[in-house]
Amino acid sequence: MNPYEELERLRIVLPPAGTPVAAFVMATQSGNLVFVSGHIARKDGKPLAGQLGREFSTEDGQAAARSVAIDLIATLHGFLGDLKRVKRVLKVMCLVNSAPTFTEQHLVANGCSELLLTVFGERGRHARSAFGASQIPLGACVEIELVAEVA
Amino acid sequence: MNPYEELERLRIVLPPAGTPVAAFVMATQSGNLVFVSGHIARKDGKPLAGQLGREFSTEDGQAAARSVAIDLIATLHGFLGDLKRVKRVLKVMCLVNSAPTFTEQHLVANGCSELLLTVFGERGRHARSAFGASQIPLGACVEIELVAEVA
Amino acid sequence: MNPYEELERLRIVLPPAGTPVAAFVMATQSGNLVFVSGHIARKDGKPLAGQLGREFSTEDGQAAARSVAIDLIATLHGFLGDLKRVKRVLKVMCLVNSAPTFTEQHLVANGCSELLLTVFGERGRHARSAFGASQIPLGACVEIELVAEVA
Repeated sequence: MNPYEELERLRIVLPPAGTPVAAFVMATQSGNLVFVSGHIARKDGKPLAGQLGREFSTEDGQAAARSVAIDLIATLHGFLGDLKRVKRVLKVMCLVNSAPTFTEQHLVANGCSELLLTVFGERGRHARSAFGASQIPLGACVEIELVAEVA
Repeated sequence: MNPYEELERLRIVLPPAGTPVAAFVMATQSGNLVFVSGHIARKDGKPLAGQLGREFSTEDGQAAARSVAIDLIATLHGFLGDLKRVKRVLKVMCLVNSAPTFTEQHLVANGCSELLLTVFGERGRHARSAFGASQIPLGACVEIELVAEVA
Repeated sequence: MNPYEELERLRIVLPPAGTPVAAFVMATQSGNLVFVSGHIARKDGKPLAGQLGREFSTEDGQAAARSVAIDLIATLHGFLGDLKRVKRVLKVMCLVNSAPTFTEQHLVANGCSELLLTVFGERGRHARSAFGASQIPLGACVEIELVAEVA
């Protein structure tokens, strides 16, 4: 399985690797574990601000989570130099900017999870937590971090 | 210390291992680290929906967190085949579906932490974060994930 | 780089290592990974309660996050015996007790991140997630956990 072929098949062009909006880095490594910082949803480079259950529907959230997955993959590509070094996506944490009545964080998170599965195949099958945050930096609708095992 | 004897002493019968409600798996492993997905509180198999500080008291939340701990242990049993392979519960993250005025997330989380201590003894002593989520998938009152070291 | 010299230069006297308010421990270790429990903001030993965007400004939150960083460093010092054993701060998770309109969690988190950078130098450069929690134990305004690689 070649992640780059999957990306091409999906007509996804990786953006430049993310840059931190504050005093941190996008990823760190210890042994074969890589910790990737929380990435917020963006549209045309700007934070995609809004709340699920208010401005945004579940489908909007899924599209946002999918776009965050693309950014996470771009960060991994920039950090590792080669996505084929990803042996396993171990863990994803998906925060959803949620109105008090919105309870479909797991469906929103699927927008990210399903892209990881498509691009990385079995190596993309991950443990996950998804839940509602009362707010997210810059008002973004979704923020996702991940931990991966790399070769 | 045999976790199965402790479970029997507490008259806890492990349920079947959890199954994901979405595009992820219940646990992943890298080296001797196991990452277990966020498990939501359930009652009779259905999500136990409600908010602490509104529908549910701290005691209700503790009972819910204890039941999530049982489900987490069931997932570890299913994933590892043998709970005696758990060398250490390293980290627990406990999300509590919280009304704006509810500030006893740490006491709710104790419902999980104390069961882990009882079942795993010293190996159950873990680092922990507990905090309020504005919502949790399916409206569940509590969601807990963990990281364990295994043999 | 000697973290103790940096602390002295900043006239920071480390407090005693934290003690858990509930059924958990302040840190665990597996191999060369250390997981540090969520530490809540305190003032004169008591929880510093309040919400960003309501009682507290971004600047208040940054000062609180900086004080949590000091407590996290104190816990690492107590756990490791020597801060020079910290090879890398891998990951920080910063929860900010946030009013619905507050979207500067990343700036609040900088209060912690910048101190870690100052004290640990390059070893303090970490991946990070910051987001809004609807509440935090004991009403604290900020809670921060971290993962470090140690020698």
